[in-house]
Amino acid sequence: MLIAAGHNKWVKLLHRFCLLLITFHLTACAQPTQMPASSQVRLAVVNTPQDSGLLTYLLAEFEAQTGHQVIVEKSDDPFAIALAGNADIIISHYGKAGMAKFIADGYGTWPNMVFANQAVLIGPNNDPARVSDSSSLEEAFRAIANNDQTLIANNNDGISALTELVSTASGLSLDGDWYRDLGVSKGRAIKVAEKEHAYVIWGAIPFLKFQAKHHTEMAILFSKDPLLQRIMAITRPKPEHFPATNTKAAKLLETYLLSTATQAKIMRFRAAGSDHQLWWPAGRHN
Amino acid sequence: MLIAAGHNKWVKLLHRFCLLLITFHLTACAQPTQMPASSQVRLAVVNTPQDSGLLTYLLAEFEAQTGHQVIVEKSDDPFAIALAGNADIIISHYGKAGMAKFIADGYGTWPNMVFANQAVLIGPNNDPARVSDSSSLEEAFRAIANNDQTLIANNNDGISALTELVSTASGLSLDGDWYRDLGVSKGRAIKVAEKEHAYVIWGAIPFLKFQAKHHTEMAILFSKDPLLQRIMAITRPKPEHFPATNTKAAKLLETYLLSTATQAKIMRFRAAGSDHQLWWPAGRHN
Repeated sequence: MLIAAGHNKWVKLLHRFCLLLITFHLTACAQPTQMPASSQVRLAVVNTPQDSGLLTYLLAEFEAQTGHQVIVEKSDDPFAIALAGNADIIISHYGKAGMAKFIADGYGTWPNMVFANQAVLIGPNNDPARVSDSSSLEEAFRAIANNDQTLIANNNDGISALTELVSTASGLSLDGDWYRDLGVSKGRAIKVAEKEHAYVIWGAIPFLKFQAKHHTEMAILFSKDPLLQRIMAITRPKPEHFPATNTKAAKLLETYLLSTATQAKIMRFRAAGSDHQLWWPAGRHN
Repeated sequence: MLIAAGHNKWVKLLHRFCLLLITFHLTACAQPTQMPASSQVRLAVVNTPQDSGLLTYLLAEFEAQTGHQVIVEKSDDPFAIALAGNADIIISHYGKAGMAKFIADGYGTWPNMVFANQAVLIGPNNDPARVSDSSSLEEAFRAIANNDQTLIANNNDGISALTELVSTASGLSLDGDWYRDLGVSKGRAIKVAEKEHAYVIWGAIPFLKFQAKHHTEMAILFSKDPLLQRIMAITRPKPEHFPATNTKAAKLLETYLLSTATQAKIMRFRAAGSDHQLWWPAGRHN
């Protein structure tokens, strides 16, 4: 596996120009900046599969089995990479902006579900509300409220929607004392929650990255509710729009990722810094 | 809510002729056999949302709120109903044959995940392997093997794939004594498992239907593993292919089903005959 190096300024400008052309539906734009060797597979992917170590863990065996080399380019917007003709295969959250349009415009194959990552409930090491004993996020929210503890809002669309859903289901109002929105998000939300001895929800992998960099007394206390999971899917750029795409190698990689053996490996994976299962196979949904 | 009555022979013949025309890509076929009134929404759906009572539970409020009437037609193949021009909205497993083709052919809108149903681990009431204490299906499989109990194969693609996945992850071989494939499926698998005092996996809703009709000492013993869930999605037939489709009402129903309030209602729903949560909101994946 090879992590693509950051592009220089001119390549970035070229990318931008290319994206501009695409918005005018000029398919002539879909030329790659670099032709792939037939044994290379260029994987454009959202951040967490790479940041967590999951891809390194899964791809080593693929490379050993097939002799292919996977060039991983992680990005907040893997579809921009694909639209510029620089990907043979894409892994992204199913609900990510860009996925629906890429498929609906006819650029990508039918999205096959591959795995889910997840958010977690984080709190003070001593867990004053004992959320780690909960059997659902709903129960954890009630434990926080009933033990006069606080959940700090982490201002992120997905987390806000999840918080609203689970509080609605549990009959807890977000106007109650147990919930406070201080306008913070991400690492800042963790720091504020730590200061307040409060709980907070965040993506498991960003939190583990934060934990590795900062001294914190905050820990992952609850993870086992399927509502915390968010599914990712595989799509492959279609060769009729992206003639230089390495379809053969990309298909091989897709088949490998969806195989029973690889799906089972996903279950066994543990990210550095946590013994919680944070990745879930999703191939059964296809 | 109105359940569509079975069609008579001539209507069936007309359907078949209509489907034949469609295979020759004559869009002229996409005329409904019955024009919907503007306050009616025709929902074509796979069996379990209707069989479980979930739709009755969810749609009553939609009908009361909007004054619309939802005409539910459940089927093993809701896409055939839609292709014949007789649906305004479809709910089906994301992985069901027909979904990918319907969307890829340009007939349906982007599939929005709505909810998941699930399979369950069923066994003798006295639960000799104590699988009900397990925290995952993997642990339940190990409990069966370690307590010299047996899992009987239920020959169904999804269940076989799940069994293979979980046994691979847990390091248990399907050639071991704990697992027996006697070539049975569905209700027959339950009867055989009961006779053998063994365990078996089946869809929760078909099992509850079986349980309501037959005397059985078998019970749902384990349900709480997200691997047991299978996601369903909503798609709407596009008006450019199906001009008589009631897009306005269908959009209203889709919005209602994906709203936080309805997604929370899905969490609270319990099917008759079980106190397990068997339906899971899936709107967060969009």
